[in-house]
Amino acid sequence: MASRNPTTEQLDAQNEADKYPKLCPGGGLLIAWQLKGKKVLIVGGGPVAAGRLVNVLDADAVLDVLCPSSGLCDEMRYRIYTEKVVANYLDQEFDMEQVSLLDGYDMVLTAIDDIELSKKICYACRDRRIPVNVADVPPECDFYFGSLIRNGPLQVMVSTGGQGPKIASQTRQKIQAAIPKNVGLAITNVGKLRAMLRKRAPQPEIGARRMRWMINVCETWNLDEICTMTESDMKHILDGWESGYVPTYKQVKGGIPFLPSDIRIKKALFGTCPVVGYPSPYLTGLTGLLAGFAISSAIFLARGVQRSS
Amino acid sequence: MASRNPTTEQLDAQNEADKYPKLCPGGGLLIAWQLKGKKVLIVGGGPVAAGRLVNVLDADAVLDVLCPSSGLCDEMRYRIYTEKVVANYLDQEFDMEQVSLLDGYDMVLTAIDDIELSKKICYACRDRRIPVNVADVPPECDFYFGSLIRNGPLQVMVSTGGQGPKIASQTRQKIQAAIPKNVGLAITNVGKLRAMLRKRAPQPEIGARRMRWMINVCETWNLDEICTMTESDMKHILDGWESGYVPTYKQVKGGIPFLPSDIRIKKALFGTCPVVGYPSPYLTGLTGLLAGFAISSAIFLARGVQRSS
Repeated sequence: MASRNPTTEQLDAQNEADKYPKLCPGGGLLIAWQLKGKKVLIVGGGPVAAGRLVNVLDADAVLDVLCPSSGLCDEMRYRIYTEKVVANYLDQEFDMEQVSLLDGYDMVLTAIDDIELSKKICYACRDRRIPVNVADVPPECDFYFGSLIRNGPLQVMVSTGGQGPKIASQTRQKIQAAIPKNVGLAITNVGKLRAMLRKRAPQPEIGARRMRWMINVCETWNLDEICTMTESDMKHILDGWESGYVPTYKQVKGGIPFLPSDIRIKKALFGTCPVVGYPSPYLTGLTGLLAGFAISSAIFLARGVQRSS
Repeated sequence: MASRNPTTEQLDAQNEADKYPKLCPGGGLLIAWQLKGKKVLIVGGGPVAAGRLVNVLDADAVLDVLCPSSGLCDEMRYRIYTEKVVANYLDQEFDMEQVSLLDGYDMVLTAIDDIELSKKICYACRDRRIPVNVADVPPECDFYFGSLIRNGPLQVMVSTGGQGPKIASQTRQKIQAAIPKNVGLAITNVGKLRAMLRKRAPQPEIGARRMRWMINVCETWNLDEICTMTESDMKHILDGWESGYVPTYKQVKGGIPFLPSDIRIKKALFGTCPVVGYPSPYLTGLTGLLAGFAISSAIFLARGVQRSS
């Protein structure tokens, strides 16, 4: 019977396992690839290519499109000729004899019907270690696209690794409904406030304190409130920084003094040092005046005492 | 005044612009990078490195970790020595003189405090065109990580490009709450059903019809119902494929004949061709029998008429 009871060692191991997230293999590595200023080539001009165009331009890439003009769909024509968002439009079929044109691209996306040509482009990219995605040919992809939601700086991607595209899009709708409409504006405002805080308290060694205070702001103000934050509101909120206090929405919008009275007195006395309060010039001036008065009084009084004695 | 009214051309351009998604630059390219069997190196052994380890192992990578054992956090020790999920553990500091050890990796992630060394590793990776992420040094990253949700095959990533980590995590919680608990199981079941369908109707040219029918299944069955799908249920559902019908949950679970009567008759007569109904052997047999009977009767009758005449 004793052997059925787990040993202390086994229990310890179990406790340890419970502490850490369980591995869950079988997924992809979801990442936000940085394309700002990077050169991307899309081979193809149909609706799938047009979708890819939006994806990479939303990520600030410099985009070339290669496709004979007869193969351009309406949206692609609109992007190329009306919006003029494509850096170089190459009106030609992809020619494996000119495969060296791939050199210099940071990413290649193909969306053409010719699977054999797709594969050849893919292998040429692999040789050059250029990340490549071949639409509809999963084994030839370094990465997959998913179902996307965008709301200003907020980006959400839903992926099922191709297993359930319909359920993925249903889930995407549920997620879309759950995301507050104003979250993009809120993130933008919090970004502005953080930038102002970094100017006011730039020391690298207080990064953790800055982060804690910013988290505090996001917990004190709800999303709707954060959306209404003006620059002047942000200045008011920042006045709480030195004392580690976050003024509430009501205090800031209602012009109500937001610091607890003891902190207000301390602030009046000790001024506004970005890290810890140091004596304000008013306080040191006043102290100096009083000290000088006291010392000179003491001297005169002492002389008076000497004379009279 | 006339010049204030938009011309037909301007109106056309406006209509066209409204048709297509508006570009929204400033984001990253959200993708699911494929790491199955790929070699990944993590430099570092602290909590951030431990988080990266989970990310890449969940994506089926072959992972090496480089970090002196004195720098390993508890989780990293657990993953290396108890779980044994790390392919090669290199108990050493990263040495720029042995930088060639980077060759052969498909991705490198650094999570060390030494920013200068991080940058050097980053540049060495760039030279080798190895995708690299340097924790806490955004400019040195080919890609960023985001806030993740995992539910079986479903993966969701929330990213704010670093602008609002707290709001991102609040949004992540809202999203988590909005995702049906059972969505992972539902996706798995739909994946099984699709695989069975592909066996039953494997022709590549009917891919679009297969996709439409699968979408139909996901619209006819809700998520909870999809979760209860057994293999035997799937076989019943697939019986609707040839006629383009999707049996409902009630029909399948209640054993109710699910095909409309006209389709049932057609099916009985024309059998179960994967693409279009072709005559069943019973029908052709019966037709043959009747035809034979008719012909021989005709002959005999004709003879009878001849004889009697």
